[in-house]
Amino acid sequence: MTSATNPVTSPPVFHVYDTTLRDGAQQEGINLSVADKLAIAPLLDELGVGYIEGGWPGAVPKDTEFFRRAAKELDLRHAVLAAFGATRKAGVRAWDDPQVRALLDSEAPVVTLVAKSDVRHVERALRTTPEEGLAMITDTVTFLAGEGRRVVVDAEHFFDGYRYDPEFSRAAVRAAFEAGAEVVALCDTNGGMLPGWVEQIVAELRDDLAVPHGRDARPGDPLLGMHAHNDSGCAVANTLAAVDAGAAHVQGTVNGYGERTGNVDLLTVVANLELKHGLRTLAGAGLEETTRIAHAVSEIANISPYARQPYVGSSAFAHKAGLHASAIKVDPDLYQHIDPTAVGNDIRMLVSDMAGRASIELKGRELGFDLSGQSELLTRVTSRVKDDEANGYTYEAADASFELLLREEITGERPGYFRVESWRTIVARAGGRGTEAEAEATVKLRAGGERIVTTGEGNGPVNALDHALRLALTRVYPEIEAFELIDFKVRILDTEQGTGAITRVLIETTDGVTSWSTVGVGPNLIEAAWEALTDSAIFGLVHAGVDPR
Amino acid sequence: MTSATNPVTSPPVFHVYDTTLRDGAQQEGINLSVADKLAIAPLLDELGVGYIEGGWPGAVPKDTEFFRRAAKELDLRHAVLAAFGATRKAGVRAWDDPQVRALLDSEAPVVTLVAKSDVRHVERALRTTPEEGLAMITDTVTFLAGEGRRVVVDAEHFFDGYRYDPEFSRAAVRAAFEAGAEVVALCDTNGGMLPGWVEQIVAELRDDLAVPHGRDARPGDPLLGMHAHNDSGCAVANTLAAVDAGAAHVQGTVNGYGERTGNVDLLTVVANLELKHGLRTLAGAGLEETTRIAHAVSEIANISPYARQPYVGSSAFAHKAGLHASAIKVDPDLYQHIDPTAVGNDIRMLVSDMAGRASIELKGRELGFDLSGQSELLTRVTSRVKDDEANGYTYEAADASFELLLREEITGERPGYFRVESWRTIVARAGGRGTEAEAEATVKLRAGGERIVTTGEGNGPVNALDHALRLALTRVYPEIEAFELIDFKVRILDTEQGTGAITRVLIETTDGVTSWSTVGVGPNLIEAAWEALTDSAIFGLVHAGVDPR
Repeated sequence: MTSATNPVTSPPVFHVYDTTLRDGAQQEGINLSVADKLAIAPLLDELGVGYIEGGWPGAVPKDTEFFRRAAKELDLRHAVLAAFGATRKAGVRAWDDPQVRALLDSEAPVVTLVAKSDVRHVERALRTTPEEGLAMITDTVTFLAGEGRRVVVDAEHFFDGYRYDPEFSRAAVRAAFEAGAEVVALCDTNGGMLPGWVEQIVAELRDDLAVPHGRDARPGDPLLGMHAHNDSGCAVANTLAAVDAGAAHVQGTVNGYGERTGNVDLLTVVANLELKHGLRTLAGAGLEETTRIAHAVSEIANISPYARQPYVGSSAFAHKAGLHASAIKVDPDLYQHIDPTAVGNDIRMLVSDMAGRASIELKGRELGFDLSGQSELLTRVTSRVKDDEANGYTYEAADASFELLLREEITGERPGYFRVESWRTIVARAGGRGTEAEAEATVKLRAGGERIVTTGEGNGPVNALDHALRLALTRVYPEIEAFELIDFKVRILDTEQGTGAITRVLIETTDGVTSWSTVGVGPNLIEAAWEALTDSAIFGLVHAGVDPR
Repeated sequence: MTSATNPVTSPPVFHVYDTTLRDGAQQEGINLSVADKLAIAPLLDELGVGYIEGGWPGAVPKDTEFFRRAAKELDLRHAVLAAFGATRKAGVRAWDDPQVRALLDSEAPVVTLVAKSDVRHVERALRTTPEEGLAMITDTVTFLAGEGRRVVVDAEHFFDGYRYDPEFSRAAVRAAFEAGAEVVALCDTNGGMLPGWVEQIVAELRDDLAVPHGRDARPGDPLLGMHAHNDSGCAVANTLAAVDAGAAHVQGTVNGYGERTGNVDLLTVVANLELKHGLRTLAGAGLEETTRIAHAVSEIANISPYARQPYVGSSAFAHKAGLHASAIKVDPDLYQHIDPTAVGNDIRMLVSDMAGRASIELKGRELGFDLSGQSELLTRVTSRVKDDEANGYTYEAADASFELLLREEITGERPGYFRVESWRTIVARAGGRGTEAEAEATVKLRAGGERIVTTGEGNGPVNALDHALRLALTRVYPEIEAFELIDFKVRILDTEQGTGAITRVLIETTDGVTSWSTVGVGPNLIEAAWEALTDSAIFGLVHAGVDPR
């Protein structure tokens, strides 16, 4: 690979610290149950992170419950659990603060304390003195370390604070180390840093406090860490800049989940460190499981995977340009920054209107058909794809429709599961503004030797047709009950003609295990949707191994 | 703001070069029509980029068409159009290469040539010698510059090439400058660079070729540029690193659209340069229009906006209401890296904040209503807009619907041109695959004192409804004959629910002189379209000065 320049070295001390379950769960739209967290933690352990921050016991009831159950139910091989909490309140002793005691009660071997390291936050948010702010750090770390806990301190708003008043921010970090913290993670809480600023500040701080550079650190040495957010789009680079400047501990979340623009994507950071810096950072299955684990976590968090996510996204190694397809086939290294299999991802050729025979052949191979040497077939498929795409189809987003096309060209026919006689859908609103419209659809088809007529209702014409089609087919193919429509997209092409334009409908269906996409096109939106709906059913039945009845 | 440390300076030479219409269109799922491109270009110009790369005339027929129409139809105030193409083929003269001639024929004042600058690509993909590779650059640039075109050279695979064989890559850049290129943009085509590598390589190259640092460059000086992709999650930082090292030209796309993990997000780059580096880079409306333009482009490209996108994402300044809510209200600067209004975004947890009212007041003024001092009305409109947008409406892209809303709140009623009694549409296909479906619609309404019942046909249900509605209204309002539907867009929101999702329809109508957009929303696509169709008719009649009859 062109970019992996260094041999892999394993530093004696380096922490990969995951906070998906705590800071990641702050993301808009994410709401992890205890069961979700108990399902995600083993995946993180399998990946090989060193630390799993599980939540804030005491402050969040379900996090208290998570630590209780995790102690009994989780069997982690690589990672240790960290409980997140805050330094003691102003004016009370650490052992009298119930929030601090709850951290002990969680029985997590590591406690991570958020501590204010920007003097403005001490004065304006805590409304106390800088001296008391430092004492809160010293007391809480001393207390927890004295109880045998390993302590990480998250120095909140560190960089903004340092740029405003370096003296206080430095004093906060020093207080944490002196009281027994193993790591002080420097937080870009508002996410606005740029890499040059981070590198300079971390280097200065490390010099001032005589903290060894990460590459020279030995067990027992004080360590600096980095906790980045992505508000200026530089979270990954900021984390790498901190490591370059001597940090030996990186915090982040799977898929970059987190508040606002998200935390740094720990998967990208780790892939960069391993594949580009030659630093071995994961203990477990490692990088090759990254893509699988990224998608599994997104399933549990119920957040659609982001196609453009570096390394693990479904588009991350997808190539469109047909012109280059033959070159990519010969020399993939020249066209991708790493070998996608290193992160468990795969090269994907998009069938598009620039498609040449080479990319169709590659696509066929991906789908399990060896088309090499079948020159006539390749020509036929290529020209059909070109014709179809000129008419508005797009196979790059509809693998299943492409596979049906390929099967049809190879076998000479479509699988004959059913024969549609006719269909009709009616949408009507019986009253004026404010009245609701109603939709129903009737489908007449032949399957399994019988003629079937069904009517479905829905909140729109496509929904009603979907219901009617399912109702009809389920009689003969009960397998279809497992199929569920999960995405429906409409694109109007050639929009200059207003409602007379051509419509393209993309439908994604799942059987609970895998999912597939089909496309339909026509001047009539309903007809386009019908084509995608029927193709989806056919593809699902083919892949369920069902024969036409 | 804590991070805007430098006063704003305007460098004498700095290029913001947008390639949304060319490289951005390579993204999986994006397929821009000529009309789409003609709609996006004015938005880019409004933002104030210096260059708009429109496509590859000659190679892609619809790009040829784009340049033909752009020359006549676009009235750009800030940006110039750039035509993208390749250096001549090996073994032919530049003026004999039809692809090169097509660049001239496009009449774009700037031509951007992709040139191979990695010797391995010259040898293995072009299958020619390094000498011929360099001659291809020299000849093509010389020819185009001789024809009076300003020439930018995109040095493809530059960084990978330089790390493998710096001598050839350097020679390629030198050849481009010597032949008359104004800018050589260094491309991280595979997107795998890290900022430290970029900074070092750009600085070395600049020294070797005696190119001035961007901050010292004067008009006429050779300039280095950066073209980044996001495969290691560092595209923004890599671009900033190149600028730090002396680049004076940044390429990118709106919303980071592009192949694989995308191109660098030009909006993030520009916001960082302006707000953090204190560099004035945009000529037009500037940063405050960023969020609006980002969303408008995503509407046209029909790609869901990414909530976590830096600066412009809907979550970018969203704070989960909780412990910090009041602190954030008092001291927002302590909790956000920039003032969100600087990029036209908004803090999201304040339910009816002043910024919302202020922008509605501004919008009202834009539409000719003076709302200043009308506090109660403003509150009512603000809260109605917020409610509607939470339900899927978007007034951003539907000025006409917003104006009707505003009129309704001001006058207490909608203009009473007609009263709908009921409508119905039927779509049916009487036969199997291959048969065409037919659509018809019946509308019953009261207007001009009579009850009117009409039936329209169309190639789809919306088309049929549109015809029926026009037919009915034309009897009483012949003015409506001048109206024509010119755009129709459908967006499925909350797509996880398949065909049960909420649908938003945007419709654009023209009377031949001006055009207006309306929005409809509902679980039923047809009903959403009906709402947009009727609003469009009402708005058109209001603006034609027609009184209800």
